[in-house]
Amino acid sequence: MSRAAIPTARYAARLEAARSRLGEGPSALLVGPGAELRYLAGYDAPPLERLTLLVLTRDGPAVLVVPRLELALAEAAPAVVAGLVRVAGWGETEDGMTPVLGALGEGLGAGLGRLTGALAPAADGPDVLVSDRLWATFMLRLHVALPAARLGLASVLLRDLRMRKDPDEVALLRAAARAADRVVEAICAGRLVGRTEADVAREVRARLVAEGHETADFATVGSGPNSASPHHAASDRVIRPGEPIVLDIGGTLGGYASDVARTMWVTGGDPANGPDPEFLRLFGAVEEAQAAARAAVMPGVPAEAIDAKARAIITAAGYGERFIHRVGHGIGLEVHEEPYLVGGNAEPLDSGMAFSLESGIYLEGRYGARIEDIVVCTPDGADVLNGGGRELRVVDG
Amino acid sequence: MSRAAIPTARYAARLEAARSRLGEGPSALLVGPGAELRYLAGYDAPPLERLTLLVLTRDGPAVLVVPRLELALAEAAPAVVAGLVRVAGWGETEDGMTPVLGALGEGLGAGLGRLTGALAPAADGPDVLVSDRLWATFMLRLHVALPAARLGLASVLLRDLRMRKDPDEVALLRAAARAADRVVEAICAGRLVGRTEADVAREVRARLVAEGHETADFATVGSGPNSASPHHAASDRVIRPGEPIVLDIGGTLGGYASDVARTMWVTGGDPANGPDPEFLRLFGAVEEAQAAARAAVMPGVPAEAIDAKARAIITAAGYGERFIHRVGHGIGLEVHEEPYLVGGNAEPLDSGMAFSLESGIYLEGRYGARIEDIVVCTPDGADVLNGGGRELRVVDG
Repeated sequence: MSRAAIPTARYAARLEAARSRLGEGPSALLVGPGAELRYLAGYDAPPLERLTLLVLTRDGPAVLVVPRLELALAEAAPAVVAGLVRVAGWGETEDGMTPVLGALGEGLGAGLGRLTGALAPAADGPDVLVSDRLWATFMLRLHVALPAARLGLASVLLRDLRMRKDPDEVALLRAAARAADRVVEAICAGRLVGRTEADVAREVRARLVAEGHETADFATVGSGPNSASPHHAASDRVIRPGEPIVLDIGGTLGGYASDVARTMWVTGGDPANGPDPEFLRLFGAVEEAQAAARAAVMPGVPAEAIDAKARAIITAAGYGERFIHRVGHGIGLEVHEEPYLVGGNAEPLDSGMAFSLESGIYLEGRYGARIEDIVVCTPDGADVLNGGGRELRVVDG
Repeated sequence: MSRAAIPTARYAARLEAARSRLGEGPSALLVGPGAELRYLAGYDAPPLERLTLLVLTRDGPAVLVVPRLELALAEAAPAVVAGLVRVAGWGETEDGMTPVLGALGEGLGAGLGRLTGALAPAADGPDVLVSDRLWATFMLRLHVALPAARLGLASVLLRDLRMRKDPDEVALLRAAARAADRVVEAICAGRLVGRTEADVAREVRARLVAEGHETADFATVGSGPNSASPHHAASDRVIRPGEPIVLDIGGTLGGYASDVARTMWVTGGDPANGPDPEFLRLFGAVEEAQAAARAAVMPGVPAEAIDAKARAIITAAGYGERFIHRVGHGIGLEVHEEPYLVGGNAEPLDSGMAFSLESGIYLEGRYGARIEDIVVCTPDGADVLNGGGRELRVVDG
């Protein structure tokens, strides 16, 4: 399969944008394995115990410090191939912090003294930013190596960049969404009754990979009472006729995340096992709330206003207390990232922002329903990346 | 498939052992999603941006703080079902740190003041331990909530417990190892020539799942020159006759990790495409070194001595500089964990320790070879969890 990818010029622009935000305040950015490293350098580092850090300063070279046995892997990263980032390896019995300090010295010169305590501290606020998901073990090692540095989060500097997706990113998000849609369709069309949730989840994962996903990260198959647990995984419970199933599935394709949720009702082929009136009422509110959220998306609208729009409908239907999650989360290289569409977040939406829109009602111990799409904010409103099929899927199963 | 699992009594014993190590020095243990949380409570928490923390003090209740929408998930965790751990949820517009501070207050009473700065600090050294892989974002939130606390790593307290596997853990490691072995056998017996590494890797992942793995975390398929890159993933390179392939695959089964490496040579059916003399010499050294490492395992032997044993053989064969990784890493709930069998680690092996033994030689740009098994240290030496098949697998492919 030929696959869209991020052009090298994007990495150059991203590195430059990050670099230009360094200087007087935070003087260095230290990025470990994860989304930030993929964003800046296209390097998908093994998330293991050996130190991997991209060292970025305003004036020095960008240096990617990696364990020596991963040199060949790092050298194949797009930003390294393009000469934008230099790689430095450390051996098994060496200290990976040594090349990190070397790169910081190259970029900061005598300014490194402000991080090690040899010079008087700079102004207030963080002076070294680390990737948000850097492990505690590395945080504490940095604290020892740079005892005078105040550590802050890279997202302070990168969030504005990462939240607004460029057309290459949107293309990958769309491809991931469509692939996940096809998996949902296949599951809805197949046999369900008599199988365990875990068995269906295995099929979901296999189909996501067959549809081009590199990873199948989650496959919620919540049947009957389990449909009322939003982050339910998949258990050994056997699916029976006359109950709903919430499918919430996703992974990554070309590095970008999919995340789609649809609700089914399985009858086992007997119309007498169709959805009961309360479920239909509840589902109607979920559907209306999600549609209202989609309709409300527009640049300039505060993130929390989208949440409020959906919540008002569900509250009016009498289920306000049962809509126990926010209406959405940003999505991109991570399945959950900024912006979060939640009460209290007044950040205005902007063109290029990609996020989920998900409404749900959960009657604990009984059943629940959810609808989730990924959308991109455009000047004309929401560009919905997923296909249709949001209606209650009543199937034989 | 009926599957071995960790009995509830183990969680009770683990929590009690952790608790008994708290008090005068570190007074609290804060455990986020990951291996430590699975170890102590059997809770496989979604690794997402919402705060999840198990709060453990010597005298207070064990409290698992989770986002409200994951309450049902957390309530199904073995230690919660057994009443060993209490769950506290926080809602989408609430601060998850509030129940964390509540639980700390319950356990520490006025002593909480030492962490918030209201009381004089206690003795030197860390007073709150956090799980080693806790994200920077949560570390910094803890720093704000507990400004007077010196944070340290949970491994200081848990490593002695986690390194020594109980019989239930060994059973799960053995089941994972055997499942991975069967995947290796199937790949060796199948078609390889003309396929891409990525395609073979997809088959590896599918087979790991079919063999009962919950996750297929890595599938290194290094063909030709890529066999010289130890952490190579799998590329679009097409496998050709007359070259080696290093397979290094693994995931988790029942929560416990598999990790096995074998080396093949594919001839495409033509004996003229067999391994060349240098590869045979190189492979012989890898084989001898790995066997020597296995033979050297015994309680009381320093971890680094096992590395030295294998390294001496490869060095004598003239490839010392090309054996670019340590000889092993601990394995359990994480694929890499303590103990590390590396130069500089004098920690004596002990009964119950589980770790990899892996020797390799890598001629950059040309080819390489590796053999890796998982073993458990017993009073009688190494109990090798993987099956045989360590010899060079010359196959038609």
